[in-house]
Order: sequence, then structure tokens, then C-alpha cells
Amino acid sequence: MSQAEQQPEPTTGAAAADAQAATERLGRLRSSIDNIDAALVHLLAERFKCTQEVGRLKAEHDMPASDPAREQRQITRLRALAEESHLDPAFAEKWFNFVVAEVIHHHERLANQH
Amino acid sequence: MSQAEQQPEPTTGAAAADAQAATERLGRLRSSIDNIDAALVHLLAERFKCTQEVGRLKAEHDMPASDPAREQRQITRLRALAEESHLDPAFAEKWFNFVVAEVIHHHERLANQH
Repeated sequence: MSQAEQQPEPTTGAAAADAQAATERLGRLRSSIDNIDAALVHLLAERFKCTQEVGRLKAEHDMPASDPAREQRQITRLRALAEESHLDPAFAEKWFNFVVAEVIHHHERLANQH
Repeated sequence: MSQAEQQPEPTTGAAAADAQAATERLGRLRSSIDNIDAALVHLLAERFKCTQEVGRLKAEHDMPASDPAREQRQITRLRALAEESHLDPAFAEKWFNFVVAEVIHHHERLANQH
């Protein structure tokens, strides 16, 4: 058996090893993403517990469901935190607005039930 | 000075104390929300570091930007985690789709630059 038959063709072998390494790296990154997502869901659950309590408090004391001045302060702060942690501040703001819209929607439903 | 002059009118006093207690409780809840939001932003930053790395890897190895089968598994898992932690699973799914849409948008920009 010649050496060429025994060993894989070098370029193909290197390419296969490279693809294998990429697949393994992808698996490790996905595992980290899954861990982070579990933490995010649990924190979101805790955040909703707080905002549900805020909603109940506001409904019981006839306070308005939304507070634009408070939201503006939150956005300014979250954009600063995003910049510090190298997250796109525009994404942080969009993300916050998405979560707040869900919360206000929830508060309004509570207020209507009250 | 009569007792009536010395003490606040009971109903008004009780209402004022109640309003004060509600305002203080609101302040405490908002402080918790701010702490949770800071943690969420930092975790999102870490998640984006992972997905940026996934994006680079996929672009370098000509892998497709999105992976519907993986996303379906993620949604199923996150809905289960949401239920366990008493978060609305429909919200968790909506939230995940929002984040994934941003990530895919980002991967596609990277792939186009490559």
C-alpha cells in the first residue's frame, strides 16, 4: 500500500479537520447561548413579578399605567449600561421598549379588571 | 387645644399614610426592576458576544445564517423554562423571536461583508 493510499489527501484532511473544529466551536457557543437564555428567562420572570406588583399597586391607587418620565430615565440608564458592556445601545433601547409595551399591555388589562 | 386639633382627621390621615406606603412600595419595586434590568442588559451583551462569534464562524464556513430546527428546539425549551418560573410562555416565545430576529439581521450584515 502506497503512502498516498494510507493517508488522506492533505488538503481534504485539513479542510475536514477545519470543518470539524468549526462544528465543535459552534456546539460550545450554542451551549453558552442556551445557559444565558435560561438565565434571561428566569430574570424576565422575576422582572414580571415586580411589574405585576407595580400594576396591582397602580390599579389599587388609581395611578396611571404608564410613566413616560420614568421610562425616559430607564432608557437613558440602559443605553449607558449597554455602551459599558459593548452592547449596541440602539438594540438595548428597542429591547426595553418591547418589554415595556408588554408590561403596559398587562397593566391596562389589570386596570380594566379592577 | 382639643384632641381633634392635635391629631389629623382619622380618615384623611389613614388615606395619606396609605398613599405614602404605596409610593414607598412603588419605589422599592422600581429599584428591584432597575437592578434586574442592569443584569438583563449585561446578560444580553454576553449573549450577543456569543452570537457574534457564531455569526463569524458561519460566515467563514459558509453555513446558513439561520437554523430553523435549532430555533424550534430553543423555543420549546424556553417555553418550558418560562412555565417553570411562572412567566407567560407566549411572552417568552415573542421575546425570543424578537432577539433572534435582531441576531439574524446582524449575521446577514456580517455575511454580506464577508
